[in-house]
Amino acid sequence: MIDVKILERIANTLESRKAADPTASYVSSLFSKGQDAILKKVGEEAVETIMAAKDEDALHLVREIADLWFHSMILLSFKGLGPSDVLAELARREGISGIEEKLGRMEIKE
Amino acid sequence: MIDVKILERIANTLESRKAADPTASYVSSLFSKGQDAILKKVGEEAVETIMAAKDEDALHLVREIADLWFHSMILLSFKGLGPSDVLAELARREGISGIEEKLGRMEIKE
Amino acid sequence: MIDVKILERIANTLESRKAADPTASYVSSLFSKGQDAILKKVGEEAVETIMAAKDEDALHLVREIADLWFHSMILLSFKGLGPSDVLAELARREGISGIEEKLGRMEIKE
Amino acid sequence: MIDVKILERIANTLESRKAADPTASYVSSLFSKGQDAILKKVGEEAVETIMAAKDEDALHLVREIADLWFHSMILLSFKGLGPSDVLAELARREGISGIEEKLGRMEIKE
Repeated sequence: MIDVKILERIANTLESRKAADPTASYVSSLFSKGQDAILKKVGEEAVETIMAAKDEDALHLVREIADLWFHSMILLSFKGLGPSDVLAELARREGISGIEEKLGRMEIKE
Repeated sequence: MIDVKILERIANTLESRKAADPTASYVSSLFSKGQDAILKKVGEEAVETIMAAKDEDALHLVREIADLWFHSMILLSFKGLGPSDVLAELARREGISGIEEKLGRMEIKE
Repeated sequence: MIDVKILERIANTLESRKAADPTASYVSSLFSKGQDAILKKVGEEAVETIMAAKDEDALHLVREIADLWFHSMILLSFKGLGPSDVLAELARREGISGIEEKLGRMEIKE
Repeated sequence: MIDVKILERIANTLESRKAADPTASYVSSLFSKGQDAILKKVGEEAVETIMAAKDEDALHLVREIADLWFHSMILLSFKGLGPSDVLAELARREGISGIEEKLGRMEIKE
């Protein structure tokens, strides 16, 4: 049901934009501006996510979380990382959570 | 390479935590506190993501983005939505981007 | 030493920009865009404050906190409030803190 | 009308808390935790300001902006700076704005 390959495809596309002409696309432009410009966008999308949730606008909320995840992936790519690192971290916690559940604490989050 | 089923498993786990005793887990406790408590955590994890990036600490950055995505998923679940909605939105943009690339604009982001 | 009238003068200036042509100034333009545009700026300046602090750049930090306070005042003005309301709240807490100090708890913040 | 001395009194109080026992007050405890703990609070109060504005709760909004300014002053104090630096910056811009107004641009903000 979930198109799971999309994160990998986006990661590959982001990688290809690194070497591209900064004027050719939004992502190439953001890479060329550097880390602070990317971080401002991550902060901006988090604020817009919070505002969309307060507005009780589900469609807008999904778009803002998509923006937040997309810009998180630009940040990861800028650092030589990718969504697989994030998913691996989430899977690692799930494993810990499994143990914790057996211990009766029932917790995903560390 | 990417363990893509993890987002779906987390979404299922979050769903099961909704009906659980608020004292039983971190997630159940957050659901019982309501939307504002969840939104504060989304904001907090975005700030910690920005700080980890400034610290040039890749391991910490991956953990903070995992926290940010995890709390985004709690927010989605609270609203009756899930990561599949976000991935569908990202895939929709990819389609638009494909067309734009042919038009020479080469842009993922709307 | 502190030019304390500045906050009052800014509040008055902001008030006068409300009725002005939206194209005439940055502030008039922000008022005409509405609350969400102002809130995005408050969030943006908070993120830039955090980034300037991490950069250990004192001059930049002062500029970003000035931006943050300035946009907080635009938000207050938009709501029919002003810096005097914020200073009154801080003074109210100081009073409470005074009592708490006598009780040996020594705390400004509630 | 505005009790303008309050910012100076708070700055002095914050200064005195630096040398105090970390367990003696909220502020001393925050100073002892260091800059990242202070920055997280600045981010948190900005998010709560945005949420209070969206809730159309004027009383709550004033309290959150008071929190935001208070924690900005803790950050300034941590860096050896104070509210007078921020007010001086705002006054400097007001001067520039005055010139700009004569030039017909009517703008406070740089």
